Amino acid sequence: MPHDVRIVTEAELRAVLGLDLALVDVVERAFAALAGEGVVMPPILSMALHEANGEVDVKTAYLPGFDGFAIKVSPGFFDNPGLGLPSLNGLMILFSARTGLVQALFLDNGYLTDLRTAAAGAVAARHMAPAQVDTAGVIGTGVQARLQMQAAHLVRPFRRVLVWGRDAGKAEACAADLSAALGIEAEATADRAGLVARSQLVVTTTPSREPLIEADWLHPGLHITAMGSDQAGKGELAPAVLAAAGRYVADRAAQCETLGELAHARAAGLMPGPILELGQVVTGQAPGRQAEDEVTICDLTGTGAQDTAIASHVATLLSGSAAGTVIRA
Amino acid sequence: MPHDVRIVTEAELRAVLGLDLALVDVVERAFAALAGEGVVMPPILSMALHEANGEVDVKTAYLPGFDGFAIKVSPGFFDNPGLGLPSLNGLMILFSARTGLVQALFLDNGYLTDLRTAAAGAVAARHMAPAQVDTAGVIGTGVQARLQMQAAHLVRPFRRVLVWGRDAGKAEACAADLSAALGIEAEATADRAGLVARSQLVVTTTPSREPLIEADWLHPGLHITAMGSDQAGKGELAPAVLAAAGRYVADRAAQCETLGELAHARAAGLMPGPILELGQVVTGQAPGRQAEDEVTICDLTGTGAQDTAIASHVATLLSGSAAGTVIRA
Repeated sequence: MPHDVRIVTEAELRAVLGLDLALVDVVERAFAALAGEGVVMPPILSMALHEANGEVDVKTAYLPGFDGFAIKVSPGFFDNPGLGLPSLNGLMILFSARTGLVQALFLDNGYLTDLRTAAAGAVAARHMAPAQVDTAGVIGTGVQARLQMQAAHLVRPFRRVLVWGRDAGKAEACAADLSAALGIEAEATADRAGLVARSQLVVTTTPSREPLIEADWLHPGLHITAMGSDQAGKGELAPAVLAAAGRYVADRAAQCETLGELAHARAAGLMPGPILELGQVVTGQAPGRQAEDEVTICDLTGTGAQDTAIASHVATLLSGSAAGTVIRA
Repeated sequence: MPHDVRIVTEAELRAVLGLDLALVDVVERAFAALAGEGVVMPPILSMALHEANGEVDVKTAYLPGFDGFAIKVSPGFFDNPGLGLPSLNGLMILFSARTGLVQALFLDNGYLTDLRTAAAGAVAARHMAPAQVDTAGVIGTGVQARLQMQAAHLVRPFRRVLVWGRDAGKAEACAADLSAALGIEAEATADRAGLVARSQLVVTTTPSREPLIEADWLHPGLHITAMGSDQAGKGELAPAVLAAAGRYVADRAAQCETLGELAHARAAGLMPGPILELGQVVTGQAPGRQAEDEVTICDLTGTGAQDTAIASHVATLLSGSAAGTVIRA
C-alpha cells in the first residue's frame, strides 16, 4: 500500500531549524527518556572501510513518548577532502513507532547530527556547569567548537570565550566567528593549561587520541564536557581527570565504557563501579552539580536517542509546511 | 557540497528488476566475496518495539569488488494488518564505498529484500541440490514460498511443485500461483512428511518456532534450504536434521549460530566445531554436493552482503535511465 514519504535536503532543513533552546529542551527530553522505562537503544552498528579510510556508524533508539524513531547513518571518509568533498556526510530516516512505515528522509549531510550533538552539550552545561560562567573555553576549532560554544551560551551566557587549537590560524578564525556569533569577547590562545585555569566551563571537541587536559589543571568550580571521543582509541582527557573530578556523568554508560573517556580511565584501573548517566541527572534521579566549587565531567559519545529527538522535532516543525519533496512510495 | 541522490519507489523498482539469473549471479558474487579477503559485515543491528509488536533490523556489508555498499532497514510491525497495512516494510540506501556519499534511496517496501532472499535460495540450490530435481517442495505459502520456488526453478527446472501450509486454502492458492508462473504441475498437500519424501529439493519459508521437518523424513538425494529462521527462537528443522544430513552449510556461520537452524542444533549439543559457509562452497573452497545420494542442508538467515549486491545491481540497471526522482541534497 503506497504511502507518502517526505524528503528534505540540508538546505531545506537549515531553513527551518537552528540551534535554539527549543531544540535543547527536546534533546533533554530524550535524555530523560533514556533514564526511564521502555527505552530501546541497541549498540551502535559500526563498519570500517579500511581501503577507503572510511567508517560508517548507524544509531537508533526507541523512546517512549516519541511518535517516531530515527535511524541515523553517519559515514566518515577521511580522504574525501583530497577529492574536494567533506569527510562527514549522512542522513536520518524517521519511521513511525506505531507502524514502522518510513515517514521522512532527512538528507542532512550531518547537519542534524551537528545540532543534536551541540544540544547535548547544552543539556550537560545546564545541569552540571556552575550557575555563573564568566569564561568558557573550547579545545578544538571545527564545527563542533563553534556549535558547542553557541549551545552552552544559550544556558550559561558567558561574556568571554577562549579557543585553543593545534593550528593557531584556525583558532583565531574560530574565535573571530564566535565573537561575531555571540557578540562577546573571544580570544585564541596557545596555552591549554591557561585556558582551563581561566574557564568555569570547558568543552573538548577534538578527535584526539592523546590527552589534551591533565588532572593537575583542574580547579574548583570547573565543568568539563568532553564530546570528541566517539570511538575506541579516541580520548581527550587524561585518565586521572575523571577520577580527580568530584562527579563524572556519561551520556550512556555502556557506550562510554568502550567509546568514551571512561574507556581510558577503566583501562588505567580507575573509575570502577556503576556510572551515572546524564538522563539520571536531568530527571533528578542522580545529583548534578551539588556545590559551586565542585569539579564535574560529562562524557558525550553521542546517542541514538538524540537522533530520534531531533528527527521528531524537525518533523513537528515541518508539519503543515510544504518544505521538501513528497514521494508516494 | 550538494550532490545528486536518486530516489526510486517500489513501483519503479518493479519495472526494472525481477527475479532472473542475472540477479542470482550477482548474489552469488556476494557470497563469493564473503568467503574472500577484505569483507566487512558487522552484526545485524536489531531493535524490538514491544509496545507496537514491532522490530527493526539493519544490515550492511562492504564487499571488495562492489563500488557501493547498502544499508538496509527492515521494519516488521505485526499488528499492521489490523490497520490495513503490510507487516513488512523498509528501504535500502546505497552509498559510495569510496566517498561514503549517499547515491540512491530505494523505497522498496521490502521488495528488494524479497528478491535477494529468493536469489540466495537459488545459489544454494545451484551448488547443493541434486543435478536432477524432478519435484520440489515448499513449506509455507507466503511471498517467499512463491519466490523461492521461482528462483529454484531458474537453476533446477523441476516439473512438479508441492506446497504445504497450515491453511489449506492458502496452500491451494500458492500452488495455483506457482503452476501459472512456472507452467508446471503444482499440488497442495496436507502431508508434510509425504512432501519431503516425494521431493529432491525442499525449501522451508516460515517463521515457525516449532520444527516442521523431522530427521527420520530425510532420504538420499535430498537438499533442504531453510530460509525462514532469521531471529533467535525461530527454527523450522528439528535439531537432529542438521546432524543427520551429510553436509550442512550456513549463509554466515556467525549469524546461523544465533539466528538460524544451527542455534537449535548447538543448543541440543549437536553440530560442534567449525561450520562451512555458502561462500566457501560457491568459490570451491569447500565442497558442495559430492554425490547424488547425499543429504544436504543450507541455512539462510539473510546477509547484508546480499543487500549490497542487489542494491549495486539495481544501480547498474538504472544507470542511464531516468527512473526515479533526483534530488540535489
